[in-house]
Amino acid sequence: MANAVILLSGGLDSYTAGAIARAEGFDLFALSLVYGQRHVVELEAARRVASALRVKRHIELFLDLSAFGGSSLVGEGEVPKDRVIDAPDIPSTYVPARNTVFLSLALAWAEALGAEDLFVGVNAVDYSGYPDCRPEFLRAFERLSRVATKAGVEGRPVRIRAPLLRLTKARIVRLGTRLGVPYRLTLSCYDPVRGRACGRCDACQLRRKGFLEAGIPDPTRYATPASKE
Amino acid sequence: MANAVILLSGGLDSYTAGAIARAEGFDLFALSLVYGQRHVVELEAARRVASALRVKRHIELFLDLSAFGGSSLVGEGEVPKDRVIDAPDIPSTYVPARNTVFLSLALAWAEALGAEDLFVGVNAVDYSGYPDCRPEFLRAFERLSRVATKAGVEGRPVRIRAPLLRLTKARIVRLGTRLGVPYRLTLSCYDPVRGRACGRCDACQLRRKGFLEAGIPDPTRYATPASKE
Repeated sequence: MANAVILLSGGLDSYTAGAIARAEGFDLFALSLVYGQRHVVELEAARRVASALRVKRHIELFLDLSAFGGSSLVGEGEVPKDRVIDAPDIPSTYVPARNTVFLSLALAWAEALGAEDLFVGVNAVDYSGYPDCRPEFLRAFERLSRVATKAGVEGRPVRIRAPLLRLTKARIVRLGTRLGVPYRLTLSCYDPVRGRACGRCDACQLRRKGFLEAGIPDPTRYATPASKE
Repeated sequence: MANAVILLSGGLDSYTAGAIARAEGFDLFALSLVYGQRHVVELEAARRVASALRVKRHIELFLDLSAFGGSSLVGEGEVPKDRVIDAPDIPSTYVPARNTVFLSLALAWAEALGAEDLFVGVNAVDYSGYPDCRPEFLRAFERLSRVATKAGVEGRPVRIRAPLLRLTKARIVRLGTRLGVPYRLTLSCYDPVRGRACGRCDACQLRRKGFLEAGIPDPTRYATPASKE
């Protein structure tokens, strides 16, 4: 069994990416970041998911990105609600260079482990338009990893695996359901209200839409009813 | 005055890079990492240097890379002593993906600040052969930053400035001395002994060689005499 590192947020996408990696036969090493996120409760979901995926090790790394600011997700201003998801702007929940930082850390661990695969649940179809979820970002990061690390220059570069990159949320939900992923363990919401998903942030809207279009019951407890139900 | 972020270790190179940025007229925002390094005392030097450079703000960010291991610099095994510096191998003090992680964090802060310049003191001449100190690494990182960030996709990418990249250590010391850098404030050693530089690790050897070849007195207090003196 080969080792792979997986970035685990506690959300739907990273669990599905992890389930795909498991189905491919990898031993998983899960990395979650405590980065000053408003929805730090997602770490509890990440622990449940890591356990369900039977990972070999789960590291929760502390890294206070709120020291830099620049995002409503780390405390500057409010998380937008009822936003039009496919609007062309990049919303205030974008955290400067977040996925660059997270992938760098996962790359560090992968190299230390001798792992040649790094899984990440990013998606560039049903998403908020963040630049660091797009194929061109992942390609540039993989190119970087070839020259940045000892493993890379010695001919064992880390592959960046983003199996959900070009899927709709509905296809992700269907795929995960086929793989037996218990989505009730996950949390997607940016701004949970007393233990329930808000139902109105981008993450909740995308999640709802995914289950609805997949025709699969959504196990999430939302604080507000869906606008189209 | 434009803002620039500078990665500040407390060593000779990052101080010199910072002095160059100051001489160019930038307002400086200094980032230092507490990453589980054996020589965490370098943070005291980083504080002295930040103060001497009159930075606008100095963030010391905690990030435990020793959780991943894979390097003698974060506690696995001993730091090599009296190593032949220009040997072709990459020594055990290489920390997996360290400069990728550090530049990613500096990029995050630069974007949050609206800064378009990021200074780093890496050098690929008198160095230990770390892959993430080379020009091809910096080029790949700058390409990544163009697609990774909101600032990048909006046409305001962060420039990666490595003014020492192709200089010998002697030239760096001469340049810094002309700029009035008080090198006694800095600490380069990987493995200090009771407040003194060990004199035998790669960092000490390179520093000694730099002052010697520059013909400038070395203000460092070493625990051991130079082998060639």
